[in-house]
Amino acid sequence: MALKLHGLPFSTCTGRVLTIFHEKSLDFELIPVNLPAGEHKQPAFLAKNPFGQIPVLEDGDLTLFESRAITAYVAEKFKDTGADLIRHNNLKEAALVKVWTEAESQNFNPAISAIVFQHLVAPIYGMTPDQAVIDANLEKLAKVLDVYEARLSSTKYLAGDFYSLADLHHFAYTFYFMKTPWSSLISHVKAWWEDISSRPAFKKVAEAMTMGQK
Amino acid sequence: MALKLHGLPFSTCTGRVLTIFHEKSLDFELIPVNLPAGEHKQPAFLAKNPFGQIPVLEDGDLTLFESRAITAYVAEKFKDTGADLIRHNNLKEAALVKVWTEAESQNFNPAISAIVFQHLVAPIYGMTPDQAVIDANLEKLAKVLDVYEARLSSTKYLAGDFYSLADLHHFAYTFYFMKTPWSSLISHVKAWWEDISSRPAFKKVAEAMTMGQK
Repeated sequence: MALKLHGLPFSTCTGRVLTIFHEKSLDFELIPVNLPAGEHKQPAFLAKNPFGQIPVLEDGDLTLFESRAITAYVAEKFKDTGADLIRHNNLKEAALVKVWTEAESQNFNPAISAIVFQHLVAPIYGMTPDQAVIDANLEKLAKVLDVYEARLSSTKYLAGDFYSLADLHHFAYTFYFMKTPWSSLISHVKAWWEDISSRPAFKKVAEAMTMGQK
Repeated sequence: MALKLHGLPFSTCTGRVLTIFHEKSLDFELIPVNLPAGEHKQPAFLAKNPFGQIPVLEDGDLTLFESRAITAYVAEKFKDTGADLIRHNNLKEAALVKVWTEAESQNFNPAISAIVFQHLVAPIYGMTPDQAVIDANLEKLAKVLDVYEARLSSTKYLAGDFYSLADLHHFAYTFYFMKTPWSSLISHVKAWWEDISSRPAFKKVAEAMTMGQK
């Protein structure tokens, strides 16, 4: 039975999950959620994710939400299919995947998601981007990227010399950030970004990431 | 060789790690970091955690940061010691631990940590708490607790009828939140909070969580 993902192909968090589906060459069905009609706040969807957010994964009778929990589940269930994204046979490498996955979650994502929201999402909803928020988060993001630059001078990928879930989690927001006027910040980690963004799995997902296109 | 934890006993994120040490009855050494002197921003500490934050775990030649990555590592390495906090023998239960661990990280923590920072930490640094920030985050936290309340009406703990890492991660900030004027919000999840906060592991950690005491 194919995996069922409730989400939208241009959404960053849906994209995070779609990327691992392609990395693992899994069969899946993408079930669109009508956000403008508020489908995600209706009882049928809230029964799947009480927080009313996309994406949601249904795998048989198991229903999961939170994109990073879904990718971790997929990486574990299909650990022997495609790239091993969690280094399940090496406790130390697995620990470093956890460290840099948390670095994305706690340090990188809060800054970059605030910028992408203000620049790309707010105008879609008729709001004016708040430049003070953008500026404060650009400053935070620059500091995070300084740490990444130093790390990537000694290892090819964030958790070590192997591509992992920690790198994968950065795709979707960085892809949209590259469409903002501040994309040159990513030059600090240029070789890494070019490497991970050229993976076939992400290129497939990126084709549908059209948010903010006129 | 004992685990070495660089941190401070009253810190929320250090407390998150100390709690799992006690759950697993592990030998450890707590090495204090002189935050007022800026020790965490000096080269010796930055070599351990380039983000300059506590806590940091040293386990032999392995150095880890980010408290939730450290707890996940400890839960995995010592999965057969004490309570199994990650349900490593059950893929579905393990997935639900991941889901509710992410719910804490992405939904609960941003709201409660902002309130605790404004009310308890800001005054220590001579800052005036920003009531607008507190109010906005109380509103967010109330919504998260509504979801928790509904969840905990059907399962004893967040991930299921078993205590897990997902519950453990909530300890430290909720403990400090209970010292604020808005502690009655937790009454939505009172039985759960009384259960998890009465565990011997957390009671040991709580003794040293004295931040904000006169």
